[in-house]
Amino acid sequence: GAGAVMGSKNLKGVVVWGTRDLFSLVVDRRRWIEETGKLSQRLANAATSKALHTYGTNLLMNIINSIGGLPTRNFETGYFEGAEKISGEYIKQHNVSEVHGCALCPIACTQMVEVKSGPYKFFGKAKYEYESTWALGANLGNGNTEAVLKLEKLANELGFDTISLGNTLATAVELAKKGKLNLPVDWDDPASFIDLAVKTAYRDGVGDDLAEGDYRLAMKYGEPEAFVGSRGQGFPAYDPRALKGFAISYVTANRGGDHLEAYSPTWEVLGVPEKIDPLCETPECVKKQVNLVIYAQHLMALADSVTFCKFDTLDKEGLFENDLAHLFNAAFGWDTTPQEMLTIGERIFNLERLFHVKEGKWIKDELPPRMRREIPTGPAKGHSATKMFEEGIKEYYSLRGWVDGKPTYETLKRLGLEEFQYLL
Amino acid sequence: GAGAVMGSKNLKGVVVWGTRDLFSLVVDRRRWIEETGKLSQRLANAATSKALHTYGTNLLMNIINSIGGLPTRNFETGYFEGAEKISGEYIKQHNVSEVHGCALCPIACTQMVEVKSGPYKFFGKAKYEYESTWALGANLGNGNTEAVLKLEKLANELGFDTISLGNTLATAVELAKKGKLNLPVDWDDPASFIDLAVKTAYRDGVGDDLAEGDYRLAMKYGEPEAFVGSRGQGFPAYDPRALKGFAISYVTANRGGDHLEAYSPTWEVLGVPEKIDPLCETPECVKKQVNLVIYAQHLMALADSVTFCKFDTLDKEGLFENDLAHLFNAAFGWDTTPQEMLTIGERIFNLERLFHVKEGKWIKDELPPRMRREIPTGPAKGHSATKMFEEGIKEYYSLRGWVDGKPTYETLKRLGLEEFQYLL
Repeated sequence: GAGAVMGSKNLKGVVVWGTRDLFSLVVDRRRWIEETGKLSQRLANAATSKALHTYGTNLLMNIINSIGGLPTRNFETGYFEGAEKISGEYIKQHNVSEVHGCALCPIACTQMVEVKSGPYKFFGKAKYEYESTWALGANLGNGNTEAVLKLEKLANELGFDTISLGNTLATAVELAKKGKLNLPVDWDDPASFIDLAVKTAYRDGVGDDLAEGDYRLAMKYGEPEAFVGSRGQGFPAYDPRALKGFAISYVTANRGGDHLEAYSPTWEVLGVPEKIDPLCETPECVKKQVNLVIYAQHLMALADSVTFCKFDTLDKEGLFENDLAHLFNAAFGWDTTPQEMLTIGERIFNLERLFHVKEGKWIKDELPPRMRREIPTGPAKGHSATKMFEEGIKEYYSLRGWVDGKPTYETLKRLGLEEFQYLL
Repeated sequence: GAGAVMGSKNLKGVVVWGTRDLFSLVVDRRRWIEETGKLSQRLANAATSKALHTYGTNLLMNIINSIGGLPTRNFETGYFEGAEKISGEYIKQHNVSEVHGCALCPIACTQMVEVKSGPYKFFGKAKYEYESTWALGANLGNGNTEAVLKLEKLANELGFDTISLGNTLATAVELAKKGKLNLPVDWDDPASFIDLAVKTAYRDGVGDDLAEGDYRLAMKYGEPEAFVGSRGQGFPAYDPRALKGFAISYVTANRGGDHLEAYSPTWEVLGVPEKIDPLCETPECVKKQVNLVIYAQHLMALADSVTFCKFDTLDKEGLFENDLAHLFNAAFGWDTTPQEMLTIGERIFNLERLFHVKEGKWIKDELPPRMRREIPTGPAKGHSATKMFEEGIKEYYSLRGWVDGKPTYETLKRLGLEEFQYLL
């Protein structure tokens, strides 16, 4: 990502400052203070905020596993028998020593962990998250609490994206077990994962191949199915065969294999705005999933632009387009509407897609082959992502005004993006 | 060393070849074949050769510990309570999977070890030695067999001198325990040692300090005594307070802290050419030690020049100056004598010393302060290296024809090195 580009240019950071009082830009200070204060209080009291504060994102481990959607051993199955020991509850009890938050955040979700002795001891504290714990735990068949936390610490120190590192190691293990890569690694083999993380960071030996990431690694060693993702980006910590919203969300994500462009557990697990059974694939469920994915893609595009935390959108008492409209109106004296806010999100999402159209690569929305197979074990046994994807993607294109992954001229026109019609 | 210089120049190796048949240079082929054949057979049958073949160099662990001369926790004491599990006998039984030798070697001492599972698993096999096992084991208070072997493998992969790495880590632990270095490391803390080895190799964070080595690390953090060595080079796996030959040998070694310029356990442990009690410091013992150190320094200088293995000199049936003279005479039709051979060694040793004289640094032969303290525990409890050093060094200079670590003009003249008199 951007960090790697900066690193390759020897750019360590960008410092920006100004001389104007930002608060002086706010036209209605009283309303602004009132609106932000109310919102902050509401967020602080929301049940999801409290749970996040107590356990951090890893409160998801046991929940997602109990649904049968916890990708295990490179998405071989959706149920990890060792999940309990890498769950938020277990780690809270054994390893969390501090809880932090970003400045002024009413949630404060950051759990700091320690491993003070034993073979996986590390110096100081480590920030730890659900996605990382899944990627370096369940997805590697690794249920050793301290080994997982050590790997998270190491990944952070070495500058890895933990999800990509976990997926790459998982691909490597699968290749090795299939005899395509000559490396004595196995699932649940943390000593090797630690070695390989270091070798990958420094492109030492086989690490030079691993540093290319899961997609290129699987291609190089002739086993495309060992890469599980879309647009060359590995999937994160939810199996779209069991949490079917992701059969649309992951696949259509412009960044590829991304849970943060439309976080479907919001409705499938947290019931926001309404509860939808993650395993349901009736025509009605498909329709609802597609509608919610599109809505969420616009709201998340707004979050990325305005820069508000997506954890604010996980509770009915959270922050949504109506709050955004209120805040903008309070700040700048506008009279924008929630719908106008979402349309900005839609424009962003279409613009992102136009980038792929321009580059001529990754235009097609594709479900990786493994997701068409049935989950072999656990609560979601027998489920695949095929139906939700096949039926959902048609509905999705139709609702978006797209054809084969591309916006039509009419869609660009509707969004005021005619200037980009030359790309079509 | 030379490898680091080559590395810094991006020089990976030097390939040399020629077109002339080397064997055609030998003037008396029959005698040459006879002499080398006899020697090879004698070496193969020597008791020390057989022991080295069976256990490798690490047969020394239990022996040196039983003398009370196994440096433990940065030379705090000479007895390591956990030696058994890192001994040659134990590792032979649990981890050695192959024994190798250099081409045509009648000894074949290389023990290849494996750790196939657990937190210290590593890929493939590792070469392992006594010095490395001591440096990354006893000297770090680390009696975990598999952790020590993993560290040896890692050190080899990362290109470390294992002794220097172990000494540097030991210095770091001592500094940390004394509150001079802010690092939560302790003795017997292999997870941290592994982390620090990687950080040191890549000069990451505190590794940037450690990469400077034990001497500079101790100086930088204001604790000179935490460096135990001479001429800036840490001592290896024998405590000179218990194996007193090293109180002369280490200290006068031109390379600094070196056991291979005069390997005094040859007589103290193996009784070659005669057994000398390693703890004895009577005037007679001092005299014998000094004489043997000087003799060995010349023989070892020859070994380094001719390139024969020093393990050939550990048995009464081994290879010595008389064999060398025989071989040279057989090969080239010379009529050199064993004494002439040793004089070549003496010239080399004096030339090396002249290098220090020229550079103006490291001329003085000094015993590090910790070696003047008494060993606090174990079989050599109460012993220090002070007496052997103080009395031995006078005898040594007198026998060499040196003053304060420098050869005199008369000595240079005797050795045919007058051309270097300008350095004095």
